Amino acid sequence: MKNMCIDKLYLVEPREFPAPRAVWRAAGAKDVLSDAKVVNSLDEAIEDCGLVIGASARERRIPWPVLSPRECGEKIWMEAANQSIALLFGSEDRGLCNEHLQKCHYHVCIPANPDYSSLNLAAAVQVLTYEIKMASLAQTDDKFHSNHTWDMPYATSKNIELFFKHLEETMTGIEFHDPDNPKQLMTRMRRLFTRVRMDEMEVSMLRGLLSAVQRK
Amino acid sequence: MKNMCIDKLYLVEPREFPAPRAVWRAAGAKDVLSDAKVVNSLDEAIEDCGLVIGASARERRIPWPVLSPRECGEKIWMEAANQSIALLFGSEDRGLCNEHLQKCHYHVCIPANPDYSSLNLAAAVQVLTYEIKMASLAQTDDKFHSNHTWDMPYATSKNIELFFKHLEETMTGIEFHDPDNPKQLMTRMRRLFTRVRMDEMEVSMLRGLLSAVQRK
Repeated sequence: MKNMCIDKLYLVEPREFPAPRAVWRAAGAKDVLSDAKVVNSLDEAIEDCGLVIGASARERRIPWPVLSPRECGEKIWMEAANQSIALLFGSEDRGLCNEHLQKCHYHVCIPANPDYSSLNLAAAVQVLTYEIKMASLAQTDDKFHSNHTWDMPYATSKNIELFFKHLEETMTGIEFHDPDNPKQLMTRMRRLFTRVRMDEMEVSMLRGLLSAVQRK
Repeated sequence: MKNMCIDKLYLVEPREFPAPRAVWRAAGAKDVLSDAKVVNSLDEAIEDCGLVIGASARERRIPWPVLSPRECGEKIWMEAANQSIALLFGSEDRGLCNEHLQKCHYHVCIPANPDYSSLNLAAAVQVLTYEIKMASLAQTDDKFHSNHTWDMPYATSKNIELFFKHLEETMTGIEFHDPDNPKQLMTRMRRLFTRVRMDEMEVSMLRGLLSAVQRK
């Protein structure tokens, strides 16, 4: 929960609270646990919520509106500005009971191996909170796409051309390359080194290597 | 893993194997554990892989190409038909070391709370395998069929390692590289040549060039 920026935990009739084992396992998220609200019934936990979604592993006899984890994350993120929202999880061994599932506007079901479909509680919480986090990032920016920052500027086309010239000279000088019978060597070199989008330092480094070869 | 339909587990130098505690925790996925391959080095685990992606929590001093979990799931699903793919995870306490991260074509980073960003190993495995599962479910979408055709197979990790070894020897031989004062040369070379995902012919071509340098 805390990894995914969610911090409001309600515990309905916990067997033991506070539980030393839980505190120990919470590691750096002990604050979430110590701030948890303990309530005597699910109704009390969700009374202020305008949207209630329950995690459900199984198909129910009476089908309920079902969201995928992704839809669930998007819906929660979209609606969280205006109201409180509850995401319900049942106990490790039995999941949510039918009575509690029927208090939900939606069920959310995590796609899984048909032969082994039941996730641990922690795993289910991880997936669903992850999708909320992803929805929040999609909303605010595209930072989680691969437009990551790089430590060096991309090499200019000019410097890339100078590199290829240097490469060809060096390969010719050591008789690895015969300009009169080039085959596909330079074409393949070009494809390799343009595909990678070298940065300026990489170009300098490779040209330094070529100069060292030439000096020898 | 098994929940998300993934069943090939490699363990690199496990502290204990088989470990009764792990067997107990595996619950209905004991088959994955008993079929796990135990190897003595990461190189052995990934030698046949044409794509290697490592889970990384932190920013590195020298940034590597980074995928979001969703991009990672899609990439793995798209490319898994043609080759073996490795998704690497480090130990619970320390994650992957730099040496191992530098064997990866991509790093994958799970967006998280900046104040509490480090996921448990199990949580990270859950998120990344979930995204592979989600990509598999979306397989009917056209975008996942958009190929990605190439004339040569991707180079295997084994051949890429042999190339790096050859490169380092050659650079040392011509006194361009000083193994006793390496600076960041090999790291930057590794980043450049893993990022581009060389094909087998490109590796042969570059090794031919290195051999020509050595002969001179």
